Amino acid sequence: MSTITLKSAHRLIEAASAEAERIGVPMNIAVVDAGGNLTAFHRQDGAWIGSIAISQAKAYTARAFDMPTADLQPMVQPDQPLYGLEASDPGNIIAFPGGIPLTQDGQIIGAIGVSGGLVDQDQQVAAAGAAAL
Amino acid sequence: MSTITLKSAHRLIEAASAEAERIGVPMNIAVVDAGGNLTAFHRQDGAWIGSIAISQAKAYTARAFDMPTADLQPMVQPDQPLYGLEASDPGNIIAFPGGIPLTQDGQIIGAIGVSGGLVDQDQQVAAAGAAAL
Amino acid sequence: MSTITLKSAHRLIEAASAEAERIGVPMNIAVVDAGGNLTAFHRQDGAWIGSIAISQAKAYTARAFDMPTADLQPMVQPDQPLYGLEASDPGNIIAFPGGIPLTQDGQIIGAIGVSGGLVDQDQQVAAAGAAAL
Amino acid sequence: MSTITLKSAHRLIEAASAEAERIGVPMNIAVVDAGGNLTAFHRQDGAWIGSIAISQAKAYTARAFDMPTADLQPMVQPDQPLYGLEASDPGNIIAFPGGIPLTQDGQIIGAIGVSGGLVDQDQQVAAAGAAAL
Repeated sequence: MSTITLKSAHRLIEAASAEAERIGVPMNIAVVDAGGNLTAFHRQDGAWIGSIAISQAKAYTARAFDMPTADLQPMVQPDQPLYGLEASDPGNIIAFPGGIPLTQDGQIIGAIGVSGGLVDQDQQVAAAGAAAL
Repeated sequence: MSTITLKSAHRLIEAASAEAERIGVPMNIAVVDAGGNLTAFHRQDGAWIGSIAISQAKAYTARAFDMPTADLQPMVQPDQPLYGLEASDPGNIIAFPGGIPLTQDGQIIGAIGVSGGLVDQDQQVAAAGAAAL
Repeated sequence: MSTITLKSAHRLIEAASAEAERIGVPMNIAVVDAGGNLTAFHRQDGAWIGSIAISQAKAYTARAFDMPTADLQPMVQPDQPLYGLEASDPGNIIAFPGGIPLTQDGQIIGAIGVSGGLVDQDQQVAAAGAAAL
Repeated sequence: MSTITLKSAHRLIEAASAEAERIGVPMNIAVVDAGGNLTAFHRQDGAWIGSIAISQAKAYTARAFDMPTADLQPMVQPDQPLYGLEASDPGNIIAFPGGIPLTQDGQIIGAIGVSGGLVDQDQQVAAAGAAAL
């Protein structure tokens, strides 16, 4: 199993942080490895403390289902196939945009999760981080 | 980071209690500090015991996301961006009106949360408490 | 069922707070009612945040077993009859001194729990609070 | 209440990481702020995944009780005053050496927690981090 290194995780967090500063929204930024386990986490000064857990859950969820959490969001709505998904592992699974799997040579080696702003902002900052892989 | 003192928290609880008595609905009233940690809590005689936890979660949530919980409520509905937010930290996050951040000199120093009546009543009592800062 | 009022709970907290100030140790002070539910809680400025939960658990435990938590402490030690008691309700049951049931006319109407110093200090402050009933 | 910045937290993590590399034991390193909330976390490549939570709990516990977790360890042994402390907040409170409060101008502004080796190694790496404040 290939997995992200701390060095790479840190580079992604730096890239995401720069994007967060560019848009002026302090963010919580988390990276998990191929096993879904937290590799690195930074909370920018002033970022929401309620988003500490959310950023980590987004990263975990993106790896747990090997897809962006943005893709999960429509599926967990009432009357949709994954309605209630969050209850399967409370605190760890969340279907907000802002979680993105990290792929290298066709293999998923981890995921990044960002929380601290509007979900579109979270997604944008996570994408900036993922692009630095 | 400035944080609310017990003395100030108590003054807010007294003001909220007076408003609760005025409208005749016994309330649970909680204040958390800048770190989101409980500073003071009063349950008026006869207030719902199910609302003990809710009032504390409202106060914590208002600080966790630095906004009134009333603003969160529309965002957590089905098909809205934060649908499922409560599952990110079960028992601590709730999106009912009645949680209000407390701001001093432009800094958030804590939050008040009230539960025990209709959400409009909770919100009204919390606002009366917050106004006493 | 007779149960402590908020007014009485507040009087106990004031008495306990005065004792805490006298010995110079900021304390977390909790009072639960006859049903074991939190009635009032004050954290003195600078009191340990880790003791928020402990003070409440001491109060709950004193009511849950209708005895001072100091009496429980020897019973939960290895090879003693209640070894492992805390695991019966994690976060709510604790066997440290500092929790005292409150009795009126032969009936237990609630309990007080104090945490923030050495257990002897906690016990002393709880006793000062209970004496104000 | 003063609180640690992300920049300072990162500097501490870098110093702790250097010490971990020097002794050849990959570590999980966590920093919490004055409110006990996670500010930054790094897991060095190959560090135990079981120690992710432990490092964070050590940092939280050091802030929760404003003392090194090494000081708590003797107190939580059977027949000692704080036996059973961990059960007061399962997952967040732990009494292993390796958690150290961070003090600036006489105020505690956060804490560092390290886990991944023998507790003496954890303590040594945490101390190296704390010294970089």
